[in-house]
Amino acid sequence: MKLVASLGTSPGGILETFEYLRRNGVEINDIEVVKTKDNAVSKAYDYLLSMFSCCIKLSYNDVIMGTLELPFSDITTSDDLNEMMKLVEPIINEGDYVDITGGRKAISMVMGLVAMKKKAHVITTIVPQSKYNEVQEKLKKGHQLVTENCSPSDKDFFCSLLTKDAVTIEINLE
Amino acid sequence: MKLVASLGTSPGGILETFEYLRRNGVEINDIEVVKTKDNAVSKAYDYLLSMFSCCIKLSYNDVIMGTLELPFSDITTSDDLNEMMKLVEPIINEGDYVDITGGRKAISMVMGLVAMKKKAHVITTIVPQSKYNEVQEKLKKGHQLVTENCSPSDKDFFCSLLTKDAVTIEINLE
Repeated sequence: MKLVASLGTSPGGILETFEYLRRNGVEINDIEVVKTKDNAVSKAYDYLLSMFSCCIKLSYNDVIMGTLELPFSDITTSDDLNEMMKLVEPIINEGDYVDITGGRKAISMVMGLVAMKKKAHVITTIVPQSKYNEVQEKLKKGHQLVTENCSPSDKDFFCSLLTKDAVTIEINLE
Repeated sequence: MKLVASLGTSPGGILETFEYLRRNGVEINDIEVVKTKDNAVSKAYDYLLSMFSCCIKLSYNDVIMGTLELPFSDITTSDDLNEMMKLVEPIINEGDYVDITGGRKAISMVMGLVAMKKKAHVITTIVPQSKYNEVQEKLKKGHQLVTENCSPSDKDFFCSLLTKDAVTIEINLE
């Protein structure tokens, strides 16, 4: 089953959602990241790749990660939203999980609407504000990215960006 | 016509949306702020009230502002979302403008869905990241809130939290 997730400037949320779902018996084995070309988002994406290699791939070796890069650096018009919708629609299938936590509200709204149309699950992960701030501070300081093997200190750093205190909820109105 | 807007930790967005709509001929004369009991959101709300008094009310004297306070400090369960939906539904009418820019993604998603059901306009305001950061820095330093009259220096401070560079777009998929 697939997890389709929008990425903002916070790299960890997508993987916290993934871990939450797996811990709760949802067999996600494909993560699709939806991102703009924005610099801060691309930086978060680079960290996400290192976190995926050092923290996720070692525990869940059946999971792959792919990317849908939107053809702009930010949403500025309704046309951008329509263009985005046409790109996102083919990658979401019935029963998939669509995480709208990352990125601009307009992106989340469009992804949520497409997911509902496709009978996918719309979900969002709530990260405590204190953890969010801690991660942003660590990102400011920075760390060498991992492209090949993770050293124990890489693993320490990148896994510390993830929290087990995140809660994923489904947006499923009565 | 009414503008219903979710508030997060950034006070200005709602008023930037209001000014954008008024500049573009949409006759909003009632702003309804939807907020949680969270401390950071309540701080933003206090600043929003001062900004409203010092920057909006003086230029647009026909506009009033009201509040819907949700009965929790954060969304943590799907039940919270359903409870929120029942509270928000009665205040949104056909043709109203619903700004989903502020607050948790789950709140935005629910407000957007209710708005679509009610045939209201779903809108969001894009504020440049640099302006967002500048405002957050000013809020950290803080400023005496205004309850009665605005001095020229109050007006300077509170109006500087607003930008004319914000762009409001409608989420209206083809």
